[in-house]
Amino acid sequence: MTGYSIADPGLAESGMKKIEWALQFMPVLQHFGEEYLESRPLQGMRIATCLHLEAKTACLLATLRRLGAEVSAAGSNPLSTQDDVCAALVRLGVDVFSHRGMSDEKYFENLGSALDIRPHIVIDDGADMIAMLHAKRRDLLDDIKGGAEETTTGITRLRAMEVEGTLAFGVIAVNDASSKYLFDNRYGTGQSVMDGLMRTTNALIAGKNIVVAGYGWCGRGVAMRAAAMGARVIVVEVDPHRAFEAVMDGHSVMSMMEAAPLGDIFLTLTGNTGVIRKEHFDIMKDGAILGNAGHFDVEISRPDLENLAVEVRGMRRNIATYVMEDGRKIHLLAEGRLVNLAAADGHPIEIMDLSFSIQLLSALHVAKNRLEAGLHPVPPEIDRAVVEVKLKTMGISLERLTEVQKAYMNSWRE
Amino acid sequence: MTGYSIADPGLAESGMKKIEWALQFMPVLQHFGEEYLESRPLQGMRIATCLHLEAKTACLLATLRRLGAEVSAAGSNPLSTQDDVCAALVRLGVDVFSHRGMSDEKYFENLGSALDIRPHIVIDDGADMIAMLHAKRRDLLDDIKGGAEETTTGITRLRAMEVEGTLAFGVIAVNDASSKYLFDNRYGTGQSVMDGLMRTTNALIAGKNIVVAGYGWCGRGVAMRAAAMGARVIVVEVDPHRAFEAVMDGHSVMSMMEAAPLGDIFLTLTGNTGVIRKEHFDIMKDGAILGNAGHFDVEISRPDLENLAVEVRGMRRNIATYVMEDGRKIHLLAEGRLVNLAAADGHPIEIMDLSFSIQLLSALHVAKNRLEAGLHPVPPEIDRAVVEVKLKTMGISLERLTEVQKAYMNSWRE
Amino acid sequence: MTGYSIADPGLAESGMKKIEWALQFMPVLQHFGEEYLESRPLQGMRIATCLHLEAKTACLLATLRRLGAEVSAAGSNPLSTQDDVCAALVRLGVDVFSHRGMSDEKYFENLGSALDIRPHIVIDDGADMIAMLHAKRRDLLDDIKGGAEETTTGITRLRAMEVEGTLAFGVIAVNDASSKYLFDNRYGTGQSVMDGLMRTTNALIAGKNIVVAGYGWCGRGVAMRAAAMGARVIVVEVDPHRAFEAVMDGHSVMSMMEAAPLGDIFLTLTGNTGVIRKEHFDIMKDGAILGNAGHFDVEISRPDLENLAVEVRGMRRNIATYVMEDGRKIHLLAEGRLVNLAAADGHPIEIMDLSFSIQLLSALHVAKNRLEAGLHPVPPEIDRAVVEVKLKTMGISLERLTEVQKAYMNSWRE
Amino acid sequence: MTGYSIADPGLAESGMKKIEWALQFMPVLQHFGEEYLESRPLQGMRIATCLHLEAKTACLLATLRRLGAEVSAAGSNPLSTQDDVCAALVRLGVDVFSHRGMSDEKYFENLGSALDIRPHIVIDDGADMIAMLHAKRRDLLDDIKGGAEETTTGITRLRAMEVEGTLAFGVIAVNDASSKYLFDNRYGTGQSVMDGLMRTTNALIAGKNIVVAGYGWCGRGVAMRAAAMGARVIVVEVDPHRAFEAVMDGHSVMSMMEAAPLGDIFLTLTGNTGVIRKEHFDIMKDGAILGNAGHFDVEISRPDLENLAVEVRGMRRNIATYVMEDGRKIHLLAEGRLVNLAAADGHPIEIMDLSFSIQLLSALHVAKNRLEAGLHPVPPEIDRAVVEVKLKTMGISLERLTEVQKAYMNSWRE
Repeated sequence: MTGYSIADPGLAESGMKKIEWALQFMPVLQHFGEEYLESRPLQGMRIATCLHLEAKTACLLATLRRLGAEVSAAGSNPLSTQDDVCAALVRLGVDVFSHRGMSDEKYFENLGSALDIRPHIVIDDGADMIAMLHAKRRDLLDDIKGGAEETTTGITRLRAMEVEGTLAFGVIAVNDASSKYLFDNRYGTGQSVMDGLMRTTNALIAGKNIVVAGYGWCGRGVAMRAAAMGARVIVVEVDPHRAFEAVMDGHSVMSMMEAAPLGDIFLTLTGNTGVIRKEHFDIMKDGAILGNAGHFDVEISRPDLENLAVEVRGMRRNIATYVMEDGRKIHLLAEGRLVNLAAADGHPIEIMDLSFSIQLLSALHVAKNRLEAGLHPVPPEIDRAVVEVKLKTMGISLERLTEVQKAYMNSWRE
Repeated sequence: MTGYSIADPGLAESGMKKIEWALQFMPVLQHFGEEYLESRPLQGMRIATCLHLEAKTACLLATLRRLGAEVSAAGSNPLSTQDDVCAALVRLGVDVFSHRGMSDEKYFENLGSALDIRPHIVIDDGADMIAMLHAKRRDLLDDIKGGAEETTTGITRLRAMEVEGTLAFGVIAVNDASSKYLFDNRYGTGQSVMDGLMRTTNALIAGKNIVVAGYGWCGRGVAMRAAAMGARVIVVEVDPHRAFEAVMDGHSVMSMMEAAPLGDIFLTLTGNTGVIRKEHFDIMKDGAILGNAGHFDVEISRPDLENLAVEVRGMRRNIATYVMEDGRKIHLLAEGRLVNLAAADGHPIEIMDLSFSIQLLSALHVAKNRLEAGLHPVPPEIDRAVVEVKLKTMGISLERLTEVQKAYMNSWRE
Repeated sequence: MTGYSIADPGLAESGMKKIEWALQFMPVLQHFGEEYLESRPLQGMRIATCLHLEAKTACLLATLRRLGAEVSAAGSNPLSTQDDVCAALVRLGVDVFSHRGMSDEKYFENLGSALDIRPHIVIDDGADMIAMLHAKRRDLLDDIKGGAEETTTGITRLRAMEVEGTLAFGVIAVNDASSKYLFDNRYGTGQSVMDGLMRTTNALIAGKNIVVAGYGWCGRGVAMRAAAMGARVIVVEVDPHRAFEAVMDGHSVMSMMEAAPLGDIFLTLTGNTGVIRKEHFDIMKDGAILGNAGHFDVEISRPDLENLAVEVRGMRRNIATYVMEDGRKIHLLAEGRLVNLAAADGHPIEIMDLSFSIQLLSALHVAKNRLEAGLHPVPPEIDRAVVEVKLKTMGISLERLTEVQKAYMNSWRE
Repeated sequence: MTGYSIADPGLAESGMKKIEWALQFMPVLQHFGEEYLESRPLQGMRIATCLHLEAKTACLLATLRRLGAEVSAAGSNPLSTQDDVCAALVRLGVDVFSHRGMSDEKYFENLGSALDIRPHIVIDDGADMIAMLHAKRRDLLDDIKGGAEETTTGITRLRAMEVEGTLAFGVIAVNDASSKYLFDNRYGTGQSVMDGLMRTTNALIAGKNIVVAGYGWCGRGVAMRAAAMGARVIVVEVDPHRAFEAVMDGHSVMSMMEAAPLGDIFLTLTGNTGVIRKEHFDIMKDGAILGNAGHFDVEISRPDLENLAVEVRGMRRNIATYVMEDGRKIHLLAEGRLVNLAAADGHPIEIMDLSFSIQLLSALHVAKNRLEAGLHPVPPEIDRAVVEVKLKTMGISLERLTEVQKAYMNSWRE
């Protein structure tokens, strides 16, 4: 243990209750935690993590601890860190470096502190920790057996590193597991973004024009749930197949310049930068509400908003109102950071049970098998095992192929 | 002004911001507030109100003030009262008697204090204030020109009083206006209950069995949105037509005894008592979550839960966990009180804009026209005006009948 | 038996099979047919009917016969008559006067022939038979114990007659029974109009702009199912509450002049005349498709279309293409007659099982109780019995109120 | 031209109208047909096709002709062949060998006749033609520059051939193009299967238990639309990720043995054999309806049904009723052949516009570039071009990445 740096260790009791609540809804993580409890396969492993430090993540970290690992944790976003959960994690023996509202400077300092554990394994969310390892902490590279990355955004960065020839160790693309992106990115994001939006604004969804930028797995989850709550959804996309899928799903599709004057609410989920910017702010309606659910806070240009505003006012919690020169107000949620994590509790627990079970089994895999440098898919047997256990805990039966059917699928003759 | 009794007048600043936020999304109330601003038609009127004291209600009360009335306010539910909003209301000149978490005893004392204003008009939510007037404060009856009632539950009680011959003054059934029940009860409740459920539990909705007791306007709103979020909905109903509507809407329908062992989440919206009780708790799954969205906290039998439990534990905010003798845990949200008000911010703002505009215009109507004793419908011109203004603020055009069409609708000859 | 006039008695075998098929899905009608089989309560009654003569209607007519009545039948729409079903009905002893594609002149002649039975009871669909009785066959009025009307359109006409003081006998408003309009008008129309539209055009629904004129029970059924198939729905309404319900249901709302240039498909369900007319045709897109699902073929102005067209061509079955002077093509389905009946098989069988069971029990009621002149609601015990039997045949249990709950609903004291 | 063998050349007029109707809704095929009209890039090419011979397919075949090819056509399914369209195709110069209801023997004879054209290119749907080429007409292999396969089923067979080392020429997997499977398999199948089911049975969808076997792209399209029409959907799957997606989409999931006694309607879309068989028929409800939408008529075991039945009766068109020994009736639609093609008009026109544009451009590609033996993906530029043209014809704008955004997507540094 290398120490910790958190807001207030005295909040542990509240954090422990949150963790206990979450754990009830994580039967898959519990299952694998118990399966490996006796053998303690992580004994001797040091694991550095950069994750959203709230209750569900804590269940993963606690499980890593119980299976024998030393674990350090930095928060992957200043606003998603929950201070009471951090306090509970410290009590559970995790070296935590984060507090809600930390500055960008402190954020990177904390990343560094978490790396001081000299990890064998890194578990990252957005790839900032892995980027730092390659940019400033190359001394640690030799110890590393492998890593795992949680997000689409992180995978995109790692792929860029791989193409460039920079990526120095093996990383499992947890995001790309079927058990992850099919559920977490879609149904998880779908529910949690609507939750964050509703609780933060108390605004009616039905009858609103909601502009969803990006129709990847996250975007379609949000579009699906927004429409389901009665909104008319406008999708902004760069990819023609995705755009036409949005049309087939009953949404309108147009460019952001066309959508800007129509939208009541804007949600960005592209993984890109400057998706909503000056030229769009200029033509928005008075009262437009903007939220981001992409990994980084660059999708909605806050610099542009600040340049345009003659006044910025806090109103409800997690809402900043930018008053334009012509009097129009534009409301930005959660400083443009992940609205589902910064202004709500992140994904539903049961969804993270799958994602974090993939993380757990990936960590076990890396502990046993040092990876070649580069991006690796989650081993298919892990991917399948996680969702099979999930179905089992729900009492759901799969159909089984008969021998005749197996043979039929492998023959081509009429 | 007769005084006030609130938690902390120092919270007014926060309450003022909440009110300002809400007012932006209430263009209809703003419209009528301005239309009548100069004439101050409530000058000299004393209005006692019993309502959920949060920001949207505050916009109604502030408007009544601005149009000339003296206004007192009691909270209609101990857990729906927001203390900062109460403080702001006091600053705006309303006599407020309520604080979050008040005891039942204090609740009735506050009702009495609000009545001390000696009202000409009462605006009630659930009919507790009107019931008290008839039971204990008959001295005040002579002054009363009329009242207005907001809820289905209140109307049911008032109708029982009317049948019994007890109801001593006229009450406008605001709940039964098309501009109210078609929207507030359905889309309002639909969104706000899902909001309360999600933010309180962080549980996944998709794939859950959600039991909805009652398929009236509130129940169908909740069932619609729960299904839209991916749940499988089981409806419990006593009325056969409503039951078959639920079937046609794609839900399962069964008795509560059949539903009890299947449900993951139970939501009650019946207006009745003991809808979920001992015999049902006995056969529920471990981990069942219970929430009420009916007006009173009698739909889920808390006494039965307390009798059965060997332990009661607080976990997340607004969740009490009852541990049964056999170890099963049953989680009760918000003490069985309105989960959308006690554990969230109540209905979306735009919905209450309609309901409270009906309230405002009904109060103006009563101020001019003392009502005969009994229940009265909202005057149709008021009902129509409110939604017409709403459509206008949204820039929506109605189709207009041509003269030919008007004639056609009144003729029967081929 | 007074005779018959149909296309071809030789088609009876095919009609009998259709009737047998339908009867399987009509357990409620079967139930009441058997309950009253022995007592033959219609013995001696003469019943004249004007209905859509297809298989489900035939099940009603056959049941009336089996319970002892003499029955005559005219088709209520030239295009909804199925000739093979007519032949089967003749074999079952019903006096049938109709054939598919009959002229307007023949239509009225057939109505007259059906009336020649000198009915005690008339069962009407659209009120043409009742109108004829009052206009030209007043000699028959004395025999009539009462009637029943199936549609919203018919009720509107009868109400106009009642207001005018013309209505000479009692008519049960079958349309207004909960067991009828809540299901037949909404879910029945919803499915059957989409069926008719899809099978006639083979056009894709997803991604289309579908304009629905009228948001009554029929219109909302169609809008609901169109959206469910992936369309973007535009609602045109004259009533503000209905318009705002459409907004809350996620649809766009505008006037027909605004909708005309946007729509790919137009569906009318208003009960009014000239809903789509010259000024709208002038600005429609090339390729627009028009279908009517209101009772009469006046909602889409065919005279206007014919005036505007330089050519009219038949393409697929039930489609007439009007070529405008500027080359634009406008496609009219089923000559502007009920698209679900003229271009498909009408409502789903199970829906008509409810509606026709109401018709059967209403006829039994009239046979026993001559009605006062005027419109009468369906007796509530009939309305309830029908849907209760339906639920029973589906194995669905209603919740039952406890004594405590009954008492609670009747008390107002806290 | 080698001749033709069709039901009745006299039906050409009706077929021509159907083709004209379809062509209006195929702007993408029209676009490419015109783009290449002058250069006639298929001049000298002989193309043998095995496809569903209805109007949309005819538009593809006519376009191939117009671009210079000689074209022969066999029907890919005895019940999907429309005789009037065949007659029209002959008039348009295509060598057609098919008639509705042909025997299995004749089906294969027709395949052989179509091959007699000695094709340079084969376009197949289900891979029967390609299989015949490898099994019995190896003399033709030398001439073949390449082929294209339309279906999931066909791809599965071709992949088995490839694994086995048998596949003797290159085949483009048209099915696997994004422009195809994302739309045709999902939204196309979703709509057309519901259309076929509704028009064939006139049964109500709302409130029914519909069992969907297979949750691939086709199955999820059908499940989505069935639920949208008010059904409760039960999914039967062998793959755990797909099964859990079905759960998240709000469906129930179970094995076929569990589903068999619950289902009112069963739809198979698995690509496998014997999906519903004796052990399931034995426990089905009286009145169960069975339809197949997988490529071959082997998914519902007709031999088992015939063994079990004491009587088989035709009722409505395209329905065979099997009466079990215990009196239960089981209704099989369209002889267990593709219910959307054999009992309706196949996919919506606009969907096939995309799929057949891919076919057209793939044929052009093969004509210019003889393929290596093996399965080939559709060239990405073709896949993209097709959907881009589609969006353009709809007037839909894509968002365009800025230079800053392109750079951002390629960098990994914070």
